[in-house]
Amino acid sequence: MANKRVYYFGGGKAEGNGQMKALLGGKGAGLAEMTNLGVPVPPGFTISTEVCDEFYKNNRRYPAGLEEEVAQNLSKLESMMGKKLGDANDPLLVSVRSGAAVSMPGMMDTVLNLGLNDKAVEGLIKKAGNERFAWDAYRRFINMFGNVVKGVHHENFEKALQSVKKKKKVELDTDLDANDLKEVVKLYKQVYKSSTKQDFPQDPRKQLWAAIDAVFGSWNNPRAIQYRKLNEIKGLIGTAVNVQSMVFGNFGNDSGTGVCFSRDPSTGKNEFYGEYLMNAQGEDVVAGIRTPQKLATLAKKDPKIYKQLVEVKERLEKHFKDMQDMEFTIERGKLFLLQTRNGKRTGPAAIKIAVDMFNEGLIGKELAVQRVTPDQLDQVFHPNIDPKAKRGVKALAKGLNASPGAATGQIVFTAEEAEEWVKQGKKVLLVRQETSPEDIGGMHAAQGILTATGGMTSHAAVVARGMGRPCVAGCKAAVISGKAMTIKETKFKQGDYVTIDGTTGEVFKGELPLIQPKITGELRTFLSWADEIRKGVERANVSTKGFLVRTNADTPADAKRAREFGAEGIGLCRTEHMFFEEERIMPFREMIVADDLDARKKALKKLLPMQKKDFKGIFKAMDGLPVTIRLLDPPLHEFVPQTKEQIKELSDLTGKSVRELQSKIATLHEANPMLGHRGCRLGVTYPEIYDMQVEAIITAACEVSAAGGKVYPEIMIPLVGTWKELSMLRENADKVCKSVLAKKKSNVKYTIGTMIEIPRAALTADKVAEYADFFSFGTNDLTQMTLGYSRDDVGSFVPFYLENNVLEEDPFARLDQEGVGQLVEMGIKKGRSTKSDLKVGICGEHGGDPSSVEFCYRVGMNYVSCSPFRVPIARLAAAQSVLKNRKK
Amino acid sequence: MANKRVYYFGGGKAEGNGQMKALLGGKGAGLAEMTNLGVPVPPGFTISTEVCDEFYKNNRRYPAGLEEEVAQNLSKLESMMGKKLGDANDPLLVSVRSGAAVSMPGMMDTVLNLGLNDKAVEGLIKKAGNERFAWDAYRRFINMFGNVVKGVHHENFEKALQSVKKKKKVELDTDLDANDLKEVVKLYKQVYKSSTKQDFPQDPRKQLWAAIDAVFGSWNNPRAIQYRKLNEIKGLIGTAVNVQSMVFGNFGNDSGTGVCFSRDPSTGKNEFYGEYLMNAQGEDVVAGIRTPQKLATLAKKDPKIYKQLVEVKERLEKHFKDMQDMEFTIERGKLFLLQTRNGKRTGPAAIKIAVDMFNEGLIGKELAVQRVTPDQLDQVFHPNIDPKAKRGVKALAKGLNASPGAATGQIVFTAEEAEEWVKQGKKVLLVRQETSPEDIGGMHAAQGILTATGGMTSHAAVVARGMGRPCVAGCKAAVISGKAMTIKETKFKQGDYVTIDGTTGEVFKGELPLIQPKITGELRTFLSWADEIRKGVERANVSTKGFLVRTNADTPADAKRAREFGAEGIGLCRTEHMFFEEERIMPFREMIVADDLDARKKALKKLLPMQKKDFKGIFKAMDGLPVTIRLLDPPLHEFVPQTKEQIKELSDLTGKSVRELQSKIATLHEANPMLGHRGCRLGVTYPEIYDMQVEAIITAACEVSAAGGKVYPEIMIPLVGTWKELSMLRENADKVCKSVLAKKKSNVKYTIGTMIEIPRAALTADKVAEYADFFSFGTNDLTQMTLGYSRDDVGSFVPFYLENNVLEEDPFARLDQEGVGQLVEMGIKKGRSTKSDLKVGICGEHGGDPSSVEFCYRVGMNYVSCSPFRVPIARLAAAQSVLKNRKK
Repeated sequence: MANKRVYYFGGGKAEGNGQMKALLGGKGAGLAEMTNLGVPVPPGFTISTEVCDEFYKNNRRYPAGLEEEVAQNLSKLESMMGKKLGDANDPLLVSVRSGAAVSMPGMMDTVLNLGLNDKAVEGLIKKAGNERFAWDAYRRFINMFGNVVKGVHHENFEKALQSVKKKKKVELDTDLDANDLKEVVKLYKQVYKSSTKQDFPQDPRKQLWAAIDAVFGSWNNPRAIQYRKLNEIKGLIGTAVNVQSMVFGNFGNDSGTGVCFSRDPSTGKNEFYGEYLMNAQGEDVVAGIRTPQKLATLAKKDPKIYKQLVEVKERLEKHFKDMQDMEFTIERGKLFLLQTRNGKRTGPAAIKIAVDMFNEGLIGKELAVQRVTPDQLDQVFHPNIDPKAKRGVKALAKGLNASPGAATGQIVFTAEEAEEWVKQGKKVLLVRQETSPEDIGGMHAAQGILTATGGMTSHAAVVARGMGRPCVAGCKAAVISGKAMTIKETKFKQGDYVTIDGTTGEVFKGELPLIQPKITGELRTFLSWADEIRKGVERANVSTKGFLVRTNADTPADAKRAREFGAEGIGLCRTEHMFFEEERIMPFREMIVADDLDARKKALKKLLPMQKKDFKGIFKAMDGLPVTIRLLDPPLHEFVPQTKEQIKELSDLTGKSVRELQSKIATLHEANPMLGHRGCRLGVTYPEIYDMQVEAIITAACEVSAAGGKVYPEIMIPLVGTWKELSMLRENADKVCKSVLAKKKSNVKYTIGTMIEIPRAALTADKVAEYADFFSFGTNDLTQMTLGYSRDDVGSFVPFYLENNVLEEDPFARLDQEGVGQLVEMGIKKGRSTKSDLKVGICGEHGGDPSSVEFCYRVGMNYVSCSPFRVPIARLAAAQSVLKNRKK
Repeated sequence: MANKRVYYFGGGKAEGNGQMKALLGGKGAGLAEMTNLGVPVPPGFTISTEVCDEFYKNNRRYPAGLEEEVAQNLSKLESMMGKKLGDANDPLLVSVRSGAAVSMPGMMDTVLNLGLNDKAVEGLIKKAGNERFAWDAYRRFINMFGNVVKGVHHENFEKALQSVKKKKKVELDTDLDANDLKEVVKLYKQVYKSSTKQDFPQDPRKQLWAAIDAVFGSWNNPRAIQYRKLNEIKGLIGTAVNVQSMVFGNFGNDSGTGVCFSRDPSTGKNEFYGEYLMNAQGEDVVAGIRTPQKLATLAKKDPKIYKQLVEVKERLEKHFKDMQDMEFTIERGKLFLLQTRNGKRTGPAAIKIAVDMFNEGLIGKELAVQRVTPDQLDQVFHPNIDPKAKRGVKALAKGLNASPGAATGQIVFTAEEAEEWVKQGKKVLLVRQETSPEDIGGMHAAQGILTATGGMTSHAAVVARGMGRPCVAGCKAAVISGKAMTIKETKFKQGDYVTIDGTTGEVFKGELPLIQPKITGELRTFLSWADEIRKGVERANVSTKGFLVRTNADTPADAKRAREFGAEGIGLCRTEHMFFEEERIMPFREMIVADDLDARKKALKKLLPMQKKDFKGIFKAMDGLPVTIRLLDPPLHEFVPQTKEQIKELSDLTGKSVRELQSKIATLHEANPMLGHRGCRLGVTYPEIYDMQVEAIITAACEVSAAGGKVYPEIMIPLVGTWKELSMLRENADKVCKSVLAKKKSNVKYTIGTMIEIPRAALTADKVAEYADFFSFGTNDLTQMTLGYSRDDVGSFVPFYLENNVLEEDPFARLDQEGVGQLVEMGIKKGRSTKSDLKVGICGEHGGDPSSVEFCYRVGMNYVSCSPFRVPIARLAAAQSVLKNRKK
């Protein structure tokens, strides 16, 4: 039946089924499926989404034959219900609801009680035996129809209602009696006429078609369009329209309505959970006029209905193999299900339900792994603002959700103060215009970080994520001036309490209560399944089995934590942070201002044992796992002294005059440091720096190995743009390694690879690969250069771009697959055309973003590397990537 | 004869010929060709370059059979000469010389007078009838052989010679008589023995093989390797060895030697030109002890020989169809040619010779066009330091040759002073750390510009090239401090004279005399031939005929000049320079600090008539030719006031407090402005700016058109990274254009295109092309981002990279075809996959670089655009690209 456009459901049999979401919408498919399952559902029919598509393509006209098809289904419905539309004795009333394949709650139109007119209201009175109920239903219908279908402003009806209440001198709608409501109906019809210049339609079939028009029309109302845009709902052809016989929960005390979940959506516990109200309609539950009762009380109040509901719940959950969110109505002691859908749940609930359902034999491991989104998993690892406390509190401002989790504390404006206050036992929130490497101690001491500028990969964001500190970055509304901050009209001084939510980017005044994370047995089980899937995968173009997750960690503590989170190695160990520590910065500065090779070597010699110690700590923490260590990357001017005192100190140490030092520091200034003298460019121009670092790495590896440890050092050369740079630096590094190994009589194996972060390196990856044992895509810098965005400056236009849809995503948060992705794919293909077994990973911030992880999987990377706190997320995202791509 | 390794020449017949340069080297091929032409050449034979290759591949051993082949050729030579090696009555003497396919003057070894020994010297005495000559030849041979073949230090021989001179109490070598020289020979043999622990070899065949060894060995001596590297000589397999019978110009007054050119290498005039010395050897001419005579005097002195020489010259020039550089020797009244090759010449000479030779029917237009290198052509357009004056003067320092030509003047350190001093009638050289847009007036007033920092595409370099001002940029040796400059030890104060050579990058103390350029009729003819070739070309993948040359010009004056130089349109008109003029900068600043749209629009309204005037001037200057106008590109902070006075002035104008303005200016600061809020990002966030510019462009076009002009405006949107930016901005621009055209009732045609300068734009060019009528590759920025180099900062490591061969070329001067080129090629292919007739050009600095022009031709660009002074160079390079690629 190629032209079938309307699908009937009722009497235990439906023309559609649960698989037909695209055609019938989520609601229509659910109603059909429930009907087929023998669940009591008020009968009705669904007009397919294809009609919506045809409607728009055909200039808002319906396809030929639709009218007849609807009429036939309506007849069927009337005969099944034994009622007729508009009947003066026992009228059929229907609801007309939207329902697309993806839920868009509240975005499209609904009309209830359709079929009422001056004659039918009399029939309803007879049937219901309740005059007030019938007039109330009628006046609600006129209001809803007028508003939804004809655009009559709700206020106009409200005024009419008020006038009657005033006349009666009552406050509440419920104080109006049947006669009053009859008067209201009269006035409503006048309102309708004066607004639309038409009489309120008495023909129920005209009412029906007008309602269908309105629902299809609401598919493209501005808020629905906006909602689809915001929620990235794409590829739908339209909404379906569900015409369903009405059931009433407000027929009396043997009637009622409720919402229930087959399991607890907050905790995931396998407990039937819900709320209901007797003698009420669904909207009463929502309106909050009466307090609904817990579902459990229904067991006592009406054990028969309760038992029936439990049976239905079990049947539905077993059938859908997922936790169900159901709407039900009891009409005169008879249970009807109006809707069922997979229920929304919190992160902890999602994990518990997935694991429980596996244990119950309901679903397999693979399905279980797909049942938890990475965002849900992430919730489990961070403190969150207590939802109860958050309700009703408005955020003062919103910045970038730079590092997830919530934090609260007294604000301080310098890193030093953060450390001092914490020593005094206070909890602080560090507020900075932007952070710099010197702030690391203070960032670590603080509960969280708030910055006024900087993007998703600004220093604050990257470091906070690495430390697992919540961070809101680039909060432009925060104006910082000395030791005070103003957000819009609110002024804060040092010591005032502020709460931030790094998961959403919100900033709150005062101290909000937080909920701390809990690691459960279910979580461990769940993640072990994810690991099973991703570790076992084999891919045609990838020489090794599995899709691994490493971490970006610079210290033994970070490494240890990441390992606990499941990291299978270090994908990026930055060596430059090590130089900022008190005792090291001076020799490093001495090296920078040295006039000749000998002086530089002398200073480097002081740093060697310190670096070696760092590396030994990391190798020990990662015993048995590979550690990729990146040689010095940032430009030297990041390390130079800033204050007069610091310069004086350096002058005392080196014997150079302050003026000489100032002049030296000035020559290091760069107009665009991001594109300047850094990375391997330093290694090429000052080979002795890298030589020292390589010596420290390999010596550390030899010593840990000699003490029984298993070390797999991987030396990574940053910012390579030409194969020549890599070939020179590799030669140097090999020379140093060989000499150390000979001296230490060690046979530790090491590899040397490069970051691919300059577009040119990706473009010429076939040549670069000749000198590389591995590639690690540094997608932060690659994004900066491919798009021409400075991550320190994106605050100026990227927020505008995102708001105005010039960009769909922040390319620093989610890999720009269309642009940057081409270079990544090209780099891997070209690299493997030279070395088929080239190991490839990613160590940019994107390594912790689920959709980027999937991209990395598709293009054949061996691993992703992300900050310690993102490791579990990446493990899940990696497993889901495997499953998603297996299906194809 | 697959294994033939030795090629004989002599007696009017040679086994090789002039085409066999790869096998016989330039010298060997030339000797063979001359021999075949019947030109008198001393007979000999050439051992091929393949032997050199085999020698090195085979661990410095010769292939089997070579010894016999050399012996056979030697016998042939002895019998043809009627002399024998080492003969006591009439010994054969030979020279052993290197000669690769590409000339490497002085880099490899030569041995003369080989064959002399204690016996042969007696034979030479008999034959020459000159005892002194013979002993002198012998001692020279021992010296040369010892030094070249055995590495005996020249000093040791010199000491021995001095001892004899001291004993004889004479000053000059020429004061020594035959007996003295005999004594010298004795001492030289002792020196040889004490240095080498061997007797001086008396067997001429051993001498010969030792010399052959040495010459082949010299192919890979360090200076030869370095020379090939510096001169980019690649793909050669080795040197040939030429063994040739000696002729002597110092047998007496009927002998002599000289060097001549078939035309004047300085001017190109068709005059036989050269120098000679009677009774002398070639080295005497070089040594400068005696002053050589002009060739013309030979006509009187020895009309017969002169006539013979003229005949030879004519035969050679006709044969090689190019100006010849010849070496000749007269031995006892008999003329011998020792070498001929295409002569080096100055730029003006190259043009004159090419045009003359065409007029003489010697060569066709295409060959004529290939006879002048773009560098030679460039010489014609700039002042140069008088070569005579430059001789012996050492440059103080060398910077980047940022804009060609020489300049001399009194140095000043600010742009204001430059303008003032020039008003006072002085000639100045502007010296700056680096220039900024505010220096433009001073740069224009100055003779030339010298900067201490900045690369080939720094502000100073780009603007200087645009103005045709000589410029040396990034001269790190120049330390500027206030109104003084120190270069190494030399101190300069304001007003001191300095001379710069922007063609070489050299900086000289004092005022050197310059030679001014001259535009000749030959030049015009020559360029018209180049135009004929490039304008007529058709390419398979390019929809239009010809390969055009446009110019980058921002003012009517520049446009006019470029048109005189042959520009066929403007490829890049930057609109931002227009805002720096006195009356405009204030409203522009007012726009920048405006708080809202209305205030911005108010300020823009003031700028509109000024911009319109600019564009009208340019359209008029380019009447009938297309003009590509780029909308505002630089970040706004480039325009903000710098000094307190300027801020005060802006405060007075806008009514904003100084503090407010300072804070506003501070918020515009960017960490990496190159990757910041500029280009179309401004257009997207402040559409009113581009709207104003588009309105000005189209209004100007309408008005010029209404007055009878032919206008082809092309609106170019810079820094596009996503198709969305372009689609939005194009829509805005089209809207403005349509409204102006309607208002003006005009049907002026315009196009809208984009720069491709962000890697992502090239990667997604298929989508970008949907909204673009044309692409213009902005290879400056594309290079910055693809390589991750900031052109303002490359001074820090790029010079090191170039010196150490990490980079072969400065990628800002010559397009990096391997990396950036891939993106350009990809961009064109993808763009044309969407629009097959997409017009594509280049407007980066590379548009004036010959090898980059050829790349642009190969990848199918419709045109290149370069600064006005490079237009003729580009015209020639374009024509040569056509010819070079046609041959394949």
